[in-house]
Amino acid sequence: MTMNRSYENLDAIFHPRSVALVGITTANPDHWTRGFLEGYLALDFPSRGKLYLVNPKGGTVEGCRVYESIQDIPDTLDFVVGLVPARSAPQLIKDAAAKGVRCIHFCTAGFSEIDDEGDEAGKKLEAELLSAARRHKVRIIGPNCLGVYCPEGRMSFSKLFPKESGPVGFISQSGGNSNYLVRQAALRGVRFSKVISIGNGCDLNESDFLEYLADDPKTEIITMYLEGIKDGVRFREALQYAAEKKPVVLLKGGATPAGARAVMGHTASLAGTHAIWESLCRQFGVIPVHSLEEMADVLVTLRFLSAPAGRRALLFGGGGGSSIIIADEFERRGVVLPHVPQPVIKELREFSQSAGNFFNNPIDYSQSMERSNVKRALDILMRWGQFDFIVNFVVPTQSTRARDFTAHLFSFDGIRKPVAIVILTSVVPEEASRIYEYIQHYAGEGFPVYFSFASAAHAISLALTHHERKAARQGS
Amino acid sequence: MTMNRSYENLDAIFHPRSVALVGITTANPDHWTRGFLEGYLALDFPSRGKLYLVNPKGGTVEGCRVYESIQDIPDTLDFVVGLVPARSAPQLIKDAAAKGVRCIHFCTAGFSEIDDEGDEAGKKLEAELLSAARRHKVRIIGPNCLGVYCPEGRMSFSKLFPKESGPVGFISQSGGNSNYLVRQAALRGVRFSKVISIGNGCDLNESDFLEYLADDPKTEIITMYLEGIKDGVRFREALQYAAEKKPVVLLKGGATPAGARAVMGHTASLAGTHAIWESLCRQFGVIPVHSLEEMADVLVTLRFLSAPAGRRALLFGGGGGSSIIIADEFERRGVVLPHVPQPVIKELREFSQSAGNFFNNPIDYSQSMERSNVKRALDILMRWGQFDFIVNFVVPTQSTRARDFTAHLFSFDGIRKPVAIVILTSVVPEEASRIYEYIQHYAGEGFPVYFSFASAAHAISLALTHHERKAARQGS
Repeated sequence: MTMNRSYENLDAIFHPRSVALVGITTANPDHWTRGFLEGYLALDFPSRGKLYLVNPKGGTVEGCRVYESIQDIPDTLDFVVGLVPARSAPQLIKDAAAKGVRCIHFCTAGFSEIDDEGDEAGKKLEAELLSAARRHKVRIIGPNCLGVYCPEGRMSFSKLFPKESGPVGFISQSGGNSNYLVRQAALRGVRFSKVISIGNGCDLNESDFLEYLADDPKTEIITMYLEGIKDGVRFREALQYAAEKKPVVLLKGGATPAGARAVMGHTASLAGTHAIWESLCRQFGVIPVHSLEEMADVLVTLRFLSAPAGRRALLFGGGGGSSIIIADEFERRGVVLPHVPQPVIKELREFSQSAGNFFNNPIDYSQSMERSNVKRALDILMRWGQFDFIVNFVVPTQSTRARDFTAHLFSFDGIRKPVAIVILTSVVPEEASRIYEYIQHYAGEGFPVYFSFASAAHAISLALTHHERKAARQGS
Repeated sequence: MTMNRSYENLDAIFHPRSVALVGITTANPDHWTRGFLEGYLALDFPSRGKLYLVNPKGGTVEGCRVYESIQDIPDTLDFVVGLVPARSAPQLIKDAAAKGVRCIHFCTAGFSEIDDEGDEAGKKLEAELLSAARRHKVRIIGPNCLGVYCPEGRMSFSKLFPKESGPVGFISQSGGNSNYLVRQAALRGVRFSKVISIGNGCDLNESDFLEYLADDPKTEIITMYLEGIKDGVRFREALQYAAEKKPVVLLKGGATPAGARAVMGHTASLAGTHAIWESLCRQFGVIPVHSLEEMADVLVTLRFLSAPAGRRALLFGGGGGSSIIIADEFERRGVVLPHVPQPVIKELREFSQSAGNFFNNPIDYSQSMERSNVKRALDILMRWGQFDFIVNFVVPTQSTRARDFTAHLFSFDGIRKPVAIVILTSVVPEEASRIYEYIQHYAGEGFPVYFSFASAAHAISLALTHHERKAARQGS
């Protein structure tokens, strides 16, 4: 399938050689506009291009010269981050076009999203913005959004984002949500090719970037937080096109009446009914999620749990009561937990104290197994082998004593089945730091790490269904 | 309704004047048996009774004399914590009975729960234990469990549990789960009257303690983690009796085939089908949960969100995208988010910067509202008043800058509607500590605190349904 695509020029957006932050505050270092400077510096944009600051007041910021006007910059410009007030936005388009800019990201809010009932001032200003853009042949990202994070192009709207690139592309109508997702997924090892916070999407919208990411060789997984769409027919085609090429994850905000009302106030989009979105996901094999936590769980799964051959899991980990709850969570979602045969159990019992252990999948090794015995147990279980993946679960805070649960840090070297790691987290600071180390260890080794039994079971089950559908499509 | 109850003597279990820890390890301070000594000392049991240690090796532990035999103790004994090997358990019953003991908690594992297919050695030993108990008129808690935590009686199986009493009674077939739940709920302000980890429940079982807690004046809310039941008819009656008097929360472990299999290996119980348990909950108005996290959420709600007059929520908090997701989570579960009338919105806009804020429930104050304006906004919204409770939500990690989110610590003084607090947590240590402070602040002030939009919506919706059913029952 080939599409009538408008993305040909979008790639340039992600690799500018000169960027101007126009409207950055010179006075207050804590002002939100400074976040862009921090982001571009944290990703070392100056090593690949020129970064210019503009504010009518002039002066310097962090030792960098602040130009009083974009015209004063002695260079052509590829990309502008617009941090100016809404009323100055149309003029900025004109000035930027004169410097050769082909794309402006307007972070600026105060457009169609602010209109209350019967009020259209914001909508009018947005139309004016778009008309200026068309007139000057400039594309707009936004307004009312955080714009672009692209580690390869060294562009970022947060200093807290990873410097390394990865295979996940993310389109988000909400800046806050894109920021939250990137950081939550990043600490579990997920890295991004391009993240685009599109806000009101008055010009470049969700369909443009979806088509772009579908064809982008740097993007292997696409995820989206969308509130509404500009052109239903085109989006439907773009979604089908993308989902045929790559796994697509979708969080639809505004699925309920109050959510939809909030969408109007947030990015002035029409939310559409929940039923339409559900049916779109089913039809095209898009993976639906309902929260950013779920989205991170699914990304971690698609990225790090290499497609298991089937639905049979071996659960092993800590604690009798935990074993039962995690077994229920996985089986309730259609994951199969094969019965371990008696001869295998007998073999395990030979070197494991029996009281407090059971070996019938889940395998509870919390009471007696020595760390050195775990490899032996895993070898026996691998020889049996009647499962498609392993879920290792640890409940550091379930113990009555403050045992060092890093004793449960096992090596899965030589285990030729996908392995998922579940560790229940804690908000108690001392526990949280140790759990963080644990997460960093396993995420660093390329394992998918989850924070609750239910969320692991849910995400893995969604991914399994995705793999099954894909296999069925390819078989048919 | 009056029942033929067997609980008359159970109250004495929770207020012993002398306790012996029999089988405590003298050599290794990290051994699990030491957890009981630490627990009893942490709750200052010696201030109300005598604590004795027993081990055939004698000597001292932490400066306390260790008696070589229970017979050597120069005192009668009320309660024994049995930490001896399974094979010595029957003899301990005989020796303890001679000292006047009426109840022994056997932590000891290695009974019916260890039997594999075709093997009955554990079952036989457990029958022997029970028969010794009957012969010597001693009641048993366990075996294979952690026993009793009762702050009033200063009994504890963990040094990490709160010293203060509270209104929640908890029956848990799993020791690990009881430990996890108590700590997770405790850090959100929940306190317990009695927690009983019953394990195999060979003598005193779930029905005994359920009847006891139903009548216990110190217990206002009952929660249970159960894997299976000993006597279905009796349990059904006890459940009905308890649920008529108090809110009852139930997590049924072993609801799936693999879960049920794990139950056999854990506490040798028959799990029963999922359908039976679901119908029991519906019939008696028991609140069903599927994880310990959910249980903690529901306890926090029952305890701290005073029964709202109805299902209408006012959501206010931080972030556009977050507002939309939280609105969806609540409305999806049948919570109503009333539309804020235009005149009220106008009043709010008068002192709030409009760009990036919307005021149509959810109320997004993240961009512009000064802390000092929040009280003013809340006052305006309270005058309007067309909602039954408030949900304040904060996403500390959604911001692009490391803003101090404690700026979102508001005072709800004078707000005469129930208020729930949702704060998304983080596993990043530095963020985790700040979030912990936030949780401690609000939990300390008696607010229910939740860690995700979905979990808050779910628990609050379960509690609302519970209140509605109760009102309907009382009305009919």
